[in-house]
Formats: sequence, C-alpha cells, structure tokens
Amino acid sequence: MSLIIDCHGHYTTAPKAMETWRNAQVAAIKNPDQMPKQSDLKISDDDLRESIEINQLKNMKERGSDMTLFSPRAAFMAHHIGDFQISSAWSAICNELCYRVSKLFPGHFYPVAMLPQSPGVDPVTCIPELEKCITEYGAVGINLNPDPSGGHWTSPSLTDRHWYPIYEKMVEYDIPAMIHVSTSCNACFHTTGAHYINADTTAFMQLVEGNLFKDFPTLKFLIPHGGGAAPYHWGRYRGLAHMLNKPQLEEHLLNNVFFDTCVYHQPGIDLLNTVIPVKNVLFASEMIGAVRAIDPQTGHQFDDTKRYIEACKLLSAEDRHQIYEANARRVFSRLDARLKKEGR
Amino acid sequence: MSLIIDCHGHYTTAPKAMETWRNAQVAAIKNPDQMPKQSDLKISDDDLRESIEINQLKNMKERGSDMTLFSPRAAFMAHHIGDFQISSAWSAICNELCYRVSKLFPGHFYPVAMLPQSPGVDPVTCIPELEKCITEYGAVGINLNPDPSGGHWTSPSLTDRHWYPIYEKMVEYDIPAMIHVSTSCNACFHTTGAHYINADTTAFMQLVEGNLFKDFPTLKFLIPHGGGAAPYHWGRYRGLAHMLNKPQLEEHLLNNVFFDTCVYHQPGIDLLNTVIPVKNVLFASEMIGAVRAIDPQTGHQFDDTKRYIEACKLLSAEDRHQIYEANARRVFSRLDARLKKEGR
Repeated sequence: MSLIIDCHGHYTTAPKAMETWRNAQVAAIKNPDQMPKQSDLKISDDDLRESIEINQLKNMKERGSDMTLFSPRAAFMAHHIGDFQISSAWSAICNELCYRVSKLFPGHFYPVAMLPQSPGVDPVTCIPELEKCITEYGAVGINLNPDPSGGHWTSPSLTDRHWYPIYEKMVEYDIPAMIHVSTSCNACFHTTGAHYINADTTAFMQLVEGNLFKDFPTLKFLIPHGGGAAPYHWGRYRGLAHMLNKPQLEEHLLNNVFFDTCVYHQPGIDLLNTVIPVKNVLFASEMIGAVRAIDPQTGHQFDDTKRYIEACKLLSAEDRHQIYEANARRVFSRLDARLKKEGR
Repeated sequence: MSLIIDCHGHYTTAPKAMETWRNAQVAAIKNPDQMPKQSDLKISDDDLRESIEINQLKNMKERGSDMTLFSPRAAFMAHHIGDFQISSAWSAICNELCYRVSKLFPGHFYPVAMLPQSPGVDPVTCIPELEKCITEYGAVGINLNPDPSGGHWTSPSLTDRHWYPIYEKMVEYDIPAMIHVSTSCNACFHTTGAHYINADTTAFMQLVEGNLFKDFPTLKFLIPHGGGAAPYHWGRYRGLAHMLNKPQLEEHLLNNVFFDTCVYHQPGIDLLNTVIPVKNVLFASEMIGAVRAIDPQTGHQFDDTKRYIEACKLLSAEDRHQIYEANARRVFSRLDARLKKEGR
C-alpha cells in the first residue's frame, strides 16, 4: 500500500481571529500606531484542532489520503499589501499556525512555508523566515510567488538572477518550491480561474526560455494546478523549445520541473498522464481550495482528485505508487527523511 | 466532401516593405515631421502573390485546406505603440493588405479585420475601420484585443460596458470576434508561449464571471489556441461557474463561445474534443504562426492540425464536417453568405 501524500494543501480554514488580525494589520498601514503585534493574535490549540478536524482531516479520511503538505492560504498571502515589514509579520503568523497544525496532527500535516515577499524588494530578505521554517518548524518546501505584485507582473522572470538567493538556499536545504501566486488585484484576472492558471503557464514558459537548471542542476520546482496550460499545449511548448534552440523538454526541464494533479475532471487528468512522464507527476488536490462544490456529473467533490487518478486507465499500480508517494518523497527529500524517522 | 475552412490565419509573411514602413512610423512618434504617409507604402500585387504562394497557399494545398480566414499578423498589431492615430494608420494598412490578398486569391482567403485599438481609448473609435472592413473589404469577422496595453492588462473585463460599442456593431453585422492579444511588452510573458494562452484563459474566465450574453444573446466569440487552458481545466470552470451561481457552462457560454483547434499535438486535440461539444469547435491552424517547426515525434509540422483532427478517434465523419465547415459557416454567417453566392 502506498502512502497517499497530497503535496498541495493550504490552511484555508484558519480560525476567524487570524483574518481579524490581518484586517487590523492592513488598516494600520495608514495608522501605524494602531499596528497589532504578532502576540496580539490568540488562537488556542482547540480552535486549531477544530478548524482542521471538521474540514481537511475529515475529507482526507473520507477520500483516503494519509497526509497533506500544508502551507498558508495562497490567496491570503497577498504580498502586494504593504511593505516587507507587513509581509514579514504576516508570514510569521501564517507559517507558525501551519507549524502548530503539523504538531497537533503528527503524521498528517507537514508544513510548507510561505515567504515574506514584497513587490520590488530583494528576495534575499526572505531568507531568515525561510531558514526559520526549515530548521525550527520542519518545513519540507516553500511556496514561491513569481508575481508578488498580485497580477501586475512587475518582477523579473524566474530565470533572472534576482531570484538566485532563494535558489541557493533551496539547493542548500534540498527543498523544492511550488510556484504559486496569490490574490489578483488586477480586475482582469479572476484569482483562481485566471491568475493561478496563467501564473503556472507563465512560469513554465519562463523556464522554457531560460537555462536556469544549468546554474542549479538540483533545483526543483513544482508547478501546481496540473501545470496550468502547459500539458494541454505540450506540442506548442515542444515546438517553441525547438525554435529557441533548447534541448527537448525532457532534458531541458523534466529533471527539475514537476506537476501536481490539481485538475478537476477525468479528461484533464488523463491528458496530464498522457503527455507528462509519471516521474514528474505528484498527487495533490488543493483541498479545501478553489473549487468547493459537488460535480453534478459525478456526484463527488470536484477536487477529489484521487478518484481521477484511480480511474485513469493509463496508469499501472506502480505508476500510481509513484504519483501518490515515491515522487513526493524524491522531490521533498526532507519529507522523506522525516517519514523514514517515523518508520514509514 | 467538406470544405476545409481554416478560421485562424495571420498575414505573417507580408513583404518586408510593410515592416520597414511600420518601423518608420514608430520612429516618427518622436519626430512627427518624419511620419510616413500611408501612400508611401508601395507593395505590388506580384509581391503580395509571391509572399502567399510560397507560404500559406503552398501549405494549404499540401495539407488539403481550402480557405483561410485571414487577418493581419497578431503580434504586429502592437496596439500599445503610440496613440489612436498611430494604430489607426497601421490598421488601415494591415487590413488593406489582407483585403488585397483576398482579391488576388479568390476563394482561398477571406479577410478578418484588426481594429485600431489603443490603450485607454474608447473602443467606439474603432467603429469606422470596422465598418469599412465589413462593407468595403468583405471582412467576415474581427480580431478583438482584450489587452491593448500588451501584457499590462489595463482594460476592463470583456463583460464591461466599455466594449459594448464594438458588440453592438458585431450584432448589427452578425460577425464574430476572435479574442486575440498581440505582442507582449511585459518581459514576464513570452508572446506566443504565455501571453496568447493566458489571454485565452483570462477571456474565458471573464465570460464565466459575467452575464454578457444576457445583453447580447447573438454575440459570438471565438477563443483561439484551443481556448487557452479552459478545456484542460473544464472541471475547474464548471465548478467555478457553479460557485458563482451561474448556469451550467453549456447554457451560460456555449451558445456564444467557440474554440479553435490551434493545439499542436494529438493528446491536446483529443482532450478538446472530449470536453467541448462538437458544435463549438472550429478548425484552425494559425499557419504560418507561432510554431514553425517539424515535430520530431511525428515528422510533420506542429501546426498541421488537420492531421490531429483526422486521427482523433472520438470524431465521426459528421463531426469532422461540423468542425471543418459547418460550424465556421454558422459562426461566420457573412462567410456563409459569400460562399453561397460562389455556389459553394
């Protein structure tokens, strides 16, 4: 039996007190003497437990997944709000709560850290929070926002040296980054329907255009939401790579770039597994996330992606083992180390 | 035998003199006394003929397509350059050349118009060019750029009243619009690898969020490049529509929104035809366009999309007839009228 590792879950159900604190923080940007302290936020273990037990953990048990790699709510990262200090205080709170959840439900949740990014600020400023999360909280990966402006896309490409301080730390700790944007504050882009998917596609094409993995041969990125549009347009990307005089995508990117299974219908999962090698696909649901509804065509939750993996006729039992467990343990090597310590 | 109607082709092979004129025009934005006149551009019929015969027409004959709905080169529209006057002069030149091509190769090319859009300028200013192209040039549709800023996304959503003057004319003439952006001047977005696909996805989600077709029940949009990411994430969009209290997508959008087949590999075309009803799929290749290379996996050009349609096991002969001909004649009703006049 494989462990079922869901590599993409956010703490979307945190107690209300957290949002109240954030609202006070945002309001205080214009009235700094009203700025709440981190210590003003009081959330009991019981409140945390309840917020998980009736939500993520309930669904995990019903669906049969064993553990979730758990990061702060993506849409609430909102790196565009305020400055580095604002992002820094907010990240510290969000990451601590995910850490506490991981301690309250050992074996079920493993933290993934958000970073205190801020538009126009050198990513090197994120390193102290990153290191704290890895060394003190046991985080097994990070979420990296390629567009901290929130839909205005003012940062350099992911292949630019701008981001290298983060990549150096990722290599040092051997942690992967999920490339994940936050709320769109550009009215053209619906957050979960356009901005998320566009960001995945954009990030993939930035990697096609560049040669990042020549500089960082062991760097690992996970592109969420099934890789945005990339697998559906795999022929286009193979052709563009050729026109840009890059090696074939397998050699150019697929030692370093992985895709999750957050694609909410059977034909999409089938396409993903038709074009992307099994070794590059990691199980995920992003539950409880963007789509919280029952699919009238199936009678099941749209984001119950395990059902699609189970029903995908292309996959053997060994393929499913890779997708559910082995690939995640390889990409998230610090998770693997912890699981081995736990005898799993 | 069906007519094979390629509903998405751009004049990417126009004689060099055209680009030279454009460069002079752009240079003259800072030196208005150097501004070239439209009449300064001299391109002979022979030059036009040659630019088509050895390129698009050659490929059409080899691949077995009968006609192309032919619009100015998308990446060269570059609506972000200069002001309305600049866009207006450039559009007039581009549209006239496509019209001349249609006259030189009767039965093979039917014009589709670009519009003289300009960031921040009321779209009503595009109406005279639109009307000229329909009434004098016989254009059968238009290309509408949802982001004339070129990757900064500063215009309102396609469902905003901002665009209604265009929609009113589209309804009056019963012409569809292909939603097609131009060059990205945002370094984050590769033009054909990210910006085009993102724009398709963004436009689709804007339509999901709105209720545009309540105001314009006969308005028709063609989303190119196989609908961006929309078909691959069809479950996500069905779920989001549900969460936004919209009708099911079939009712909400699929009487008005169509997808072309510019998806450059077999699994992508198979996915498209798995999730999108046959009535909503229109044959297209965007040849000669974004991907000009031979797929080493097949030995054929990536953009030879007819091969994928032929090989798609989901489609019956009647389905292919719809995709190749019937749907295009229904969506482009002015094309249908012209074809009938020609006895086709």
